[in-house]
Amino acid sequence: MFEIRTDLAVEAREMYSSAHNKDPEGVIVKEDIPYEDIKVTKVSITNEEGEKDMGRPIGDYITIDMPEFTYYDGETMNRVSEVMADSLSKIINKDKHKNTLVIGLGNWNVTPDALGPRVISKIMVTRHLKELIPDKIDENIAPVSALSPGVLGLTGIETVEIVKGVVDKTKPDLIICVDALASRRLERVNRTIQISDTGISPGSGLKNHRKALNVETLGVKVIAIGVPTVVDAATIANDSIDLVLDEMIKEATKGGEFYNMLKSIDKNEKGRLIEELLSSKGGDLIVTPKEVDIIVDSVSRVISNGINLALQPSLDLEDINQFMN
Amino acid sequence: MFEIRTDLAVEAREMYSSAHNKDPEGVIVKEDIPYEDIKVTKVSITNEEGEKDMGRPIGDYITIDMPEFTYYDGETMNRVSEVMADSLSKIINKDKHKNTLVIGLGNWNVTPDALGPRVISKIMVTRHLKELIPDKIDENIAPVSALSPGVLGLTGIETVEIVKGVVDKTKPDLIICVDALASRRLERVNRTIQISDTGISPGSGLKNHRKALNVETLGVKVIAIGVPTVVDAATIANDSIDLVLDEMIKEATKGGEFYNMLKSIDKNEKGRLIEELLSSKGGDLIVTPKEVDIIVDSVSRVISNGINLALQPSLDLEDINQFMN
Amino acid sequence: MFEIRTDLAVEAREMYSSAHNKDPEGVIVKEDIPYEDIKVTKVSITNEEGEKDMGRPIGDYITIDMPEFTYYDGETMNRVSEVMADSLSKIINKDKHKNTLVIGLGNWNVTPDALGPRVISKIMVTRHLKELIPDKIDENIAPVSALSPGVLGLTGIETVEIVKGVVDKTKPDLIICVDALASRRLERVNRTIQISDTGISPGSGLKNHRKALNVETLGVKVIAIGVPTVVDAATIANDSIDLVLDEMIKEATKGGEFYNMLKSIDKNEKGRLIEELLSSKGGDLIVTPKEVDIIVDSVSRVISNGINLALQPSLDLEDINQFMN
Amino acid sequence: MFEIRTDLAVEAREMYSSAHNKDPEGVIVKEDIPYEDIKVTKVSITNEEGEKDMGRPIGDYITIDMPEFTYYDGETMNRVSEVMADSLSKIINKDKHKNTLVIGLGNWNVTPDALGPRVISKIMVTRHLKELIPDKIDENIAPVSALSPGVLGLTGIETVEIVKGVVDKTKPDLIICVDALASRRLERVNRTIQISDTGISPGSGLKNHRKALNVETLGVKVIAIGVPTVVDAATIANDSIDLVLDEMIKEATKGGEFYNMLKSIDKNEKGRLIEELLSSKGGDLIVTPKEVDIIVDSVSRVISNGINLALQPSLDLEDINQFMN
Repeated sequence: MFEIRTDLAVEAREMYSSAHNKDPEGVIVKEDIPYEDIKVTKVSITNEEGEKDMGRPIGDYITIDMPEFTYYDGETMNRVSEVMADSLSKIINKDKHKNTLVIGLGNWNVTPDALGPRVISKIMVTRHLKELIPDKIDENIAPVSALSPGVLGLTGIETVEIVKGVVDKTKPDLIICVDALASRRLERVNRTIQISDTGISPGSGLKNHRKALNVETLGVKVIAIGVPTVVDAATIANDSIDLVLDEMIKEATKGGEFYNMLKSIDKNEKGRLIEELLSSKGGDLIVTPKEVDIIVDSVSRVISNGINLALQPSLDLEDINQFMN
Repeated sequence: MFEIRTDLAVEAREMYSSAHNKDPEGVIVKEDIPYEDIKVTKVSITNEEGEKDMGRPIGDYITIDMPEFTYYDGETMNRVSEVMADSLSKIINKDKHKNTLVIGLGNWNVTPDALGPRVISKIMVTRHLKELIPDKIDENIAPVSALSPGVLGLTGIETVEIVKGVVDKTKPDLIICVDALASRRLERVNRTIQISDTGISPGSGLKNHRKALNVETLGVKVIAIGVPTVVDAATIANDSIDLVLDEMIKEATKGGEFYNMLKSIDKNEKGRLIEELLSSKGGDLIVTPKEVDIIVDSVSRVISNGINLALQPSLDLEDINQFMN
Repeated sequence: MFEIRTDLAVEAREMYSSAHNKDPEGVIVKEDIPYEDIKVTKVSITNEEGEKDMGRPIGDYITIDMPEFTYYDGETMNRVSEVMADSLSKIINKDKHKNTLVIGLGNWNVTPDALGPRVISKIMVTRHLKELIPDKIDENIAPVSALSPGVLGLTGIETVEIVKGVVDKTKPDLIICVDALASRRLERVNRTIQISDTGISPGSGLKNHRKALNVETLGVKVIAIGVPTVVDAATIANDSIDLVLDEMIKEATKGGEFYNMLKSIDKNEKGRLIEELLSSKGGDLIVTPKEVDIIVDSVSRVISNGINLALQPSLDLEDINQFMN
Repeated sequence: MFEIRTDLAVEAREMYSSAHNKDPEGVIVKEDIPYEDIKVTKVSITNEEGEKDMGRPIGDYITIDMPEFTYYDGETMNRVSEVMADSLSKIINKDKHKNTLVIGLGNWNVTPDALGPRVISKIMVTRHLKELIPDKIDENIAPVSALSPGVLGLTGIETVEIVKGVVDKTKPDLIICVDALASRRLERVNRTIQISDTGISPGSGLKNHRKALNVETLGVKVIAIGVPTVVDAATIANDSIDLVLDEMIKEATKGGEFYNMLKSIDKNEKGRLIEELLSSKGGDLIVTPKEVDIIVDSVSRVISNGINLALQPSLDLEDINQFMN
């Protein structure tokens, strides 16, 4: 059977609700609108039933929806960074003495996958200064380190092995992992930030066989931050087919021959049709805005600013920019 | 009405034939198979009817289809470069004294559009050496210059203005323009090279409002070389819908109510459905392999080698590499 | 005889004065200190004698000296951009309707030479908008276009040919050329901006055989903006030798044998010694800070902001950043 | 006292011999000339006296001198890679089952320091394939992994901590570290490859306060491979001064007043003079060819090919290129 891939909890919930005509069990949703053009949605999975229905572990999943042209407006970018910092701070439990390791997942050579490494290049790194020149560094500055471990194909080493090795040596109190995601809907591509306190689980995206990065594998709390930068081409094909079928199902008499035929295509043949459409190409096909290079650059600035603000509660954006230059 | 975008003449012909159940007038097609895994198709538009049916000017359009994994196999890449050089040489009318200007169209900041500029960076540039140190340069070396004019959004200047300005000063005998294209079929993405002797026309791709680069605007013969690096997301949506409708039309009784409804969706509503699917995003949505960065790099090597071989008939690939390093 | 290379007029004047124990004729110098850490020096060459003594054409050469750590402090960077915009505006004769073409000279593949192209990538380009969507563009916005023509070795075409070709087609009222320079003193590297209204002359840097870009060759007023990013290694060698000789000459009895020997080394053998030191390497040897990549990036931001402010007098930095994103 | 920095053992030996008018104790030198334009010199430090005289630990230091224009000639590059592979193989004790981790030291944002990370990007990485799809990988292929840990300023973590963490998890049998070096002589810049079996020691380059990467800190044999990409600007200043002094000392009567004065400058004042020349700049000043970007790219190809050949004795360069594409 064809399965839609999404890394976003809000979409997993939508998909469950639409497929089962009911909300998943043990899942609580709260919305907040800090600015009229920014929405913060918190999806909390509270028990094992929710875990099963949602296909992801117990925990909080915060989604920040930002305006369409955020990446073309410095002022909006800063507001989103601040909203993000606010959400992140609540999960972190602001503690200026916390030693945090920020990990940028993904392949720096593949633009839609380069979000993590690009965020890392803009993180305010202070751990070494606190150790080497403690007298010159304000005591309110928190120790932060940062690493882009690369991907299995480039290093020959599972990401979790590299990160665990570094964690064992540097003993951070907290890990933040940044990653590019796939979403289910085009309108969320580069428009949504997801923050969760569950780390990165193997099953979070369906095709994502990567090993988990979480408190079980690393021994430290792991916060995951992601932004969808692509939609699978198969998802677009699926949605196109659904749209036609829905259109016709609306017209057809329920239970009639035509109606049943439409339902049967939906159930049995859709996967085959999608495969027929896309199978000719070996590689992963993605749908992305043409300007993906420019957008990933801007997104990475929003995310890094948000992380820097949350990790350094005694500084504002201006202080941070000053430090970074 | 929704219109499928393609920059490839072979696809324009396929689309015409499939829509009208007949071949376009005045269009001659010849195929050649120089290696069992490489196919060369020459589509010649010979008169005004063909021009109208095909939506592109009278001239020759050569398509080279290469094997699926060309970009992962240096030996195949070289064979494709040689086949391409051979086709190109025939159009050029090999003349070692010809002064050629190679133009790399497209935006170097947008990976799927960066093919032209990347090819330029690998062209064997000799014009200045012929002028400055003629005694040290073998007389068989042809004078070649190369330019990446950028795109309107980056320069504020129409590409044709920049190129015409440079042509007026440097007076080349021949211009070769390299550009990234959009194709209609995923299986042609990064798998097809199109060479034509008609230059680049404004109507070649439907959404392509760029001004023409051809003998009329530049005063010199213009050869266009392109490789499709993307498919419009709208094309995938369209194909998905077609596939479902075709599937059902096959089953439905011709002339019956159901049959008519399907036909009517096809005709009247498809455009609206596609818009509904994709309209949420402002930018151009494209479908591309995830590894587009790596592939564009390899394609640009194949193309630049092909051009270098065709422009320097007295050299082989080894000589050219030696010169380039 | 060994000749020291400098592209800076202030240094040419220093060198003349020190060699001849008098100031060059017809050269007027004015200093201004807009901020306590920024100095603006205007060297005006007013007649042919000055031209000969200074080795550069009649005109104004403004030098802005900025604080040592400018590139690590966003606030200082903005102040320098504003001082630069102010100096540039006076030369331009602020006229919002002026159509300006900004040219970024240099090779984008060679970091110390990449200043020009990097500035171009941050110029606020508006010419096409004024032509294509005049109703949507504030009438106070001036038309600006921008081009990085590359270098002779990459294009096979003299820069002046490319620029002249584009000028003939686009008919700008003013040209601004940005280039990386060589200075004579390490303390000026990346610390000095030179603005001149004379364009770029072939003799400005001694080893610089490039053809001129000025009102004679282009038919339009050309303003040159440059920042020294390197010192020739030969200059360092020369200075080291001078320092030792000076040290000893101070001690030696004037006219004595030792004194004469020192003077003779200075005059006759210095060139040979420097050649002996450096000749083993084919290429141009330069002295540069190790972090040249990072610094060139920051310098290019200061320069592009300065140009944007001067060309768009109705906008401030915030407006410009908003437009650029 | 001013101290010349070199990371090359052959230069340390030259400097010792020239300063003490005798060869260092316990140091054995062997030369080999595999091609008329390539020289291999093996400096073996055999005891503690040699260790003290040479300022580096007991072990073998192999230097490969290559022709001046290697980087402009693919054929010479391949010959150098093969000579390097041969030297490296002898140190490794070819054993196809060895599990090797290749580490690329240095900062990818600073061109002269980016050699290590660029080599890593061209290493044939196989460890994951041996683990994930052992049946599809020829048993003669050795498991290799690769990592660019970044630099302290970018990560906040000492390189040795990152590497030790990864070593603990992945348990390689051998580590190869690649790094950009500083040399003492311009003619060795980008012309010399040093291979040593002692790892990277804190005292190897005088200003190099980095912690050691060797068998003591990592628990596994560490081979260091380096190429000098710069000379300290201070070294050039020093050499210039020496050259003048030597010139005069030759002329002066031994023991005379002038002679003594020259000797005294040499001993007591040279450091002050150099500082006077260079102290105006905060950062590290380096001397480097202007085309450093292009050269580092070529050097990294020579080194990565050499490593790939040595680690995969069953493959030739063609096999390796095929695998890499």
